[in-house]
Amino acid sequence: MRITFTHLKFVILGALFLTLVLTLFQAVCVTKSYSHRCPEKENTNISSSPSPLINLPREKLPTIYLITPTYSRAEQKAELTRLGNTLLHVESIHWILIEDSDFPSNLISNFLARFQALSKNRSNIRVTHLVKRTPIEYRTKLNDPNWLKPRGVLQRNEGLKWLRNNRNNIDSRGIVYFADDDNTYDLRLFDEMRDTKKVSCWPVGLVGGLMVERPLVNDENKVIGWNAVYKPERLYPLDMAGFAVNITLILKNPKAFFTLKVPRGFQESYLLKQLISDISELEPKSDKCTQVLVWHTRTERPNLKQEVKLKRPSNENIEV
Amino acid sequence: MRITFTHLKFVILGALFLTLVLTLFQAVCVTKSYSHRCPEKENTNISSSPSPLINLPREKLPTIYLITPTYSRAEQKAELTRLGNTLLHVESIHWILIEDSDFPSNLISNFLARFQALSKNRSNIRVTHLVKRTPIEYRTKLNDPNWLKPRGVLQRNEGLKWLRNNRNNIDSRGIVYFADDDNTYDLRLFDEMRDTKKVSCWPVGLVGGLMVERPLVNDENKVIGWNAVYKPERLYPLDMAGFAVNITLILKNPKAFFTLKVPRGFQESYLLKQLISDISELEPKSDKCTQVLVWHTRTERPNLKQEVKLKRPSNENIEV
Repeated sequence: MRITFTHLKFVILGALFLTLVLTLFQAVCVTKSYSHRCPEKENTNISSSPSPLINLPREKLPTIYLITPTYSRAEQKAELTRLGNTLLHVESIHWILIEDSDFPSNLISNFLARFQALSKNRSNIRVTHLVKRTPIEYRTKLNDPNWLKPRGVLQRNEGLKWLRNNRNNIDSRGIVYFADDDNTYDLRLFDEMRDTKKVSCWPVGLVGGLMVERPLVNDENKVIGWNAVYKPERLYPLDMAGFAVNITLILKNPKAFFTLKVPRGFQESYLLKQLISDISELEPKSDKCTQVLVWHTRTERPNLKQEVKLKRPSNENIEV
Repeated sequence: MRITFTHLKFVILGALFLTLVLTLFQAVCVTKSYSHRCPEKENTNISSSPSPLINLPREKLPTIYLITPTYSRAEQKAELTRLGNTLLHVESIHWILIEDSDFPSNLISNFLARFQALSKNRSNIRVTHLVKRTPIEYRTKLNDPNWLKPRGVLQRNEGLKWLRNNRNNIDSRGIVYFADDDNTYDLRLFDEMRDTKKVSCWPVGLVGGLMVERPLVNDENKVIGWNAVYKPERLYPLDMAGFAVNITLILKNPKAFFTLKVPRGFQESYLLKQLISDISELEPKSDKCTQVLVWHTRTERPNLKQEVKLKRPSNENIEV
């Protein structure tokens, strides 16, 4: 049998038809596999009023700038590892990690290199590594109780400075959140803060001597007071983990900073009074501040008393 | 022109050829999109000897059965939330959570419902919720130091019983790992344990009074001893977080359990001596036990001293 031009036409016709069918089939599969791969994006909004942002594709969400002060200690890498595992689920974030140090440490540099490798191809997760040493007279000593001196103050300020110095390169719709490395974050928290217009706020679990310290909110979704018992004279008696700020306010008020000069517990109020005039400007989140999506967990200092009995440290040449 | 049988043969021929080409093309695309969607799966194998499992699609990996005892306390939901955030990155796991309780609590039921919603469409993440109450004489009291009594013993046994009772429905290639709810896990740990043949082991950070407690391994990748200083007379001086067991050994030895009758620190050795005959059967992981991929972190009991000053608890109608 001779293969004629007519035969070839039919070959092409058949091929084109199958291509069409397969393309349609593939499109269906890809859509399915997408929802299969990103399960953490479902069921994440618990607000009573849905945010207008829910219609944006996740990679176009306003960036959340996470300012995380960190300092060298036995459990540092562990803390950052589990925080990193949480943040890898969150779209459109820029994690600014500020070490209490004169120089970037190998441990943090290695950690961030790995975190970036894990977030590779998620172009909307970025990282910045800064350092700022706390002067010796303000440093917590090994046997000081952890509340004696303020911690992370100058590091958070360094993060604020970085945002202002890079005002031309950052997301002008961005949100700033002070995310300490030992807290615990529910993924829905990041959805809640994402549409902050000025300053948003919400409950924090296990802080201020309470199961939950929180703003009290009326039916019109306005903050009308606080349930705080610890230093209730604070102007804004909430924890560092309990609020987020729109980047516009940070840029508009270039001298707004934290300070080493206020007593413990007053950092949040000190910053916020430079940004807003009163509680009427606060935006309550988490279903009128009735849901706990962040906990002020603290990690025990590990017992290392066997370490002194060793001639060579157990972690010689091993990063812990 | 008449369409003959010959024409149809050519249509089929062309279609089959294009199908072959497209299938190959699709396979390449799926592989690419796969690595794109799961950034946490890159750079994950730090072993010197690559596992034969790396060629399996991730959803066909042997199941890791995670046995996690948990008990009611202020920080319980926080702990499980951050552990859950980590586990959501891991493919092919079955999380068996066993409450120290007579009845399933609302808190854990709610938590697991949410975890399952997040892992929905990951058919390879499963959950089982069990309960087992520790008898009153073995329970840690509120002001007891946390090391006074063994904890999680009967709950872990309940997990082992469940596996044996469900032997016909579980993955016969599975691995069993005792994953406490307060430890910190690097995602690579799960890749390391995945091809355990009998019992695998690796270093654990921040345990036994050391920065790292670990098996000592020779050039042939055999365990030849331990660096433990805390109770070095233990037969297998490693932490609960420092080993995993192939399911076959659990099923072959149906009477192998933990016990309330051994002193603190001896649970691991008590179980392992029922499963293997000596250290020659151990399989060292994590690059000859030189990498720390799990930390025995402990969370501080939160200070709740303001709570007593309140007429109504701060968390009335609020789950913390």
